[in-house]
Amino acid sequence: MAFLFILPTWPVAVWARAMRQAAPAMDVRAWPDGLGNIADIDYAAAWLPPPNVVRGLPNLKVLFSLGAGVDAILNDPTLPENVPIVRVNDPDLTGRMTEYVVLHVLLHHRQQRRIDANQRRKVWDSFPTHAATQMSVGIMGLGVMGQDSACRLRDLGFRVAGWSRTGKDIEGIESFAGAAGFDAFLARTDILVSLLPATPETDGIINSATISKLSHQGPFGAPIIINAGRGRQQVEADILAALESGALHAATLDVFQAEPLPPDSPLWTHPKVTVTPHVAADSDPEVICAYVARQIERYRQGLALENVVDRAHGY
Amino acid sequence: MAFLFILPTWPVAVWARAMRQAAPAMDVRAWPDGLGNIADIDYAAAWLPPPNVVRGLPNLKVLFSLGAGVDAILNDPTLPENVPIVRVNDPDLTGRMTEYVVLHVLLHHRQQRRIDANQRRKVWDSFPTHAATQMSVGIMGLGVMGQDSACRLRDLGFRVAGWSRTGKDIEGIESFAGAAGFDAFLARTDILVSLLPATPETDGIINSATISKLSHQGPFGAPIIINAGRGRQQVEADILAALESGALHAATLDVFQAEPLPPDSPLWTHPKVTVTPHVAADSDPEVICAYVARQIERYRQGLALENVVDRAHGY
Repeated sequence: MAFLFILPTWPVAVWARAMRQAAPAMDVRAWPDGLGNIADIDYAAAWLPPPNVVRGLPNLKVLFSLGAGVDAILNDPTLPENVPIVRVNDPDLTGRMTEYVVLHVLLHHRQQRRIDANQRRKVWDSFPTHAATQMSVGIMGLGVMGQDSACRLRDLGFRVAGWSRTGKDIEGIESFAGAAGFDAFLARTDILVSLLPATPETDGIINSATISKLSHQGPFGAPIIINAGRGRQQVEADILAALESGALHAATLDVFQAEPLPPDSPLWTHPKVTVTPHVAADSDPEVICAYVARQIERYRQGLALENVVDRAHGY
Repeated sequence: MAFLFILPTWPVAVWARAMRQAAPAMDVRAWPDGLGNIADIDYAAAWLPPPNVVRGLPNLKVLFSLGAGVDAILNDPTLPENVPIVRVNDPDLTGRMTEYVVLHVLLHHRQQRRIDANQRRKVWDSFPTHAATQMSVGIMGLGVMGQDSACRLRDLGFRVAGWSRTGKDIEGIESFAGAAGFDAFLARTDILVSLLPATPETDGIINSATISKLSHQGPFGAPIIINAGRGRQQVEADILAALESGALHAATLDVFQAEPLPPDSPLWTHPKVTVTPHVAADSDPEVICAYVARQIERYRQGLALENVVDRAHGY
């Protein structure tokens, strides 16, 4: 029984160590150097696997994604069709995403960047403020993470709505569904949070047209966006143009069209933009490997795998 | 029936307008110019009243404090002994304080200041992170505000404890009480939040000795303090010395020994200090005046006043 990590862009030794700790009986290997006899390999975890590497494993039973987003795996056009893909859905990962979303919603809502700028100039300034009850937050993507963020923001007093493929029934959260509900969702939203999975349908969804449909009736007169989904969902030129024209008040971006964000991107230095280096929901190797080991144990006991990716929907 | 505002350092016109809106039948006056016949005045609201101004009102029935802290009123040594003082305890004010506490706990926990510094240098840096479940927050002062902050932080996964004069029984919140419980409370606390009322007992409580007793086992190896209580609770020289020696990792301060914070204070420019201009729980005149009007209505109907200050305890 062997487990293979295929992580060409990640520190694979850290992950192998964590997996050996989580499953001491497992023969844990790392592609490319530690591949060994490929016939032994029952389980694998990948992030951005090169074409044919996964396909070349003849006895693979389950493929794991080490993050909530599975686009880095589904991008491999040679993926075997009949191997189930399991994505991580762990309270640790969900909690980290919620921390990020709540932090950045509050950072904008409480005008902390204005206070930061005042501190740099030693200015003790008072200005009109408003309560969370006056601010409408809209979350695109109401999976496990989106629902958790929505509930915590609701508990802080924000008016929260969610937009997802299918409507969701969550206490105190307004639900909008599909293409038909998109414009109404945007029209009531002062702070837009994207936690969408990367699928062809969501590519470029944060663009000029979307921004222009957001609420301009909120406390700041222009909306705010927070993207902790995937970079290909945002059109960075449109975001910059909207910040310049005043159609957008501010933005926090954790993901980008190109990562790492290139040094010549104007996003780095824009005074209205907070850039974070794709850390919203950092995977803790120990926690994630413990999750993977639990799923393998379930599988070996003949139980159904949890959080299996629906390839038709892309998440 | 007349109502008098005594607000020498506040924009009294804004408050008078909000009070007239909340209680249209009331004769609303503002000290000093609009005092009128003092025998008419049944109710008053004060902030830093000059000596003898409140005492000189012969028919005063209730005195209101316009914030949660009542030290600005109790500082008046000439206050009449037999007039009840009512402090504001409104969900709006509580919610704003909770927003502030949650924002600044998350700001430190998520190392946002490190990310901010990286953004200024266009550095895309990855560093080890940790989950809320690994961080212990300790809240000094478990009144209505402290309890609300504690519960929201608990729901985000933080390990939360509270310290107060009397122990409190709140689900999922560890409770420490009085002088006997202080050292144990500090020893388990990575992020110390003060929401204490200003009383002689809490003067200077955030000092070198207190800081040295905080946990040094947390994710950053040194503790963090957030003071949204009152400035006289902190010894600023001790905080600066602890930041220099490494005994303290960082601080967010909303209140100061002198306010506005003087331009020559080294706190303004210290890289580990976030200075906010006493805005943690800003009083919204409309919300607060609606609260005051409700309390007056209760009093006129013969019902008991709510949130009456216990002068012996100072809050």
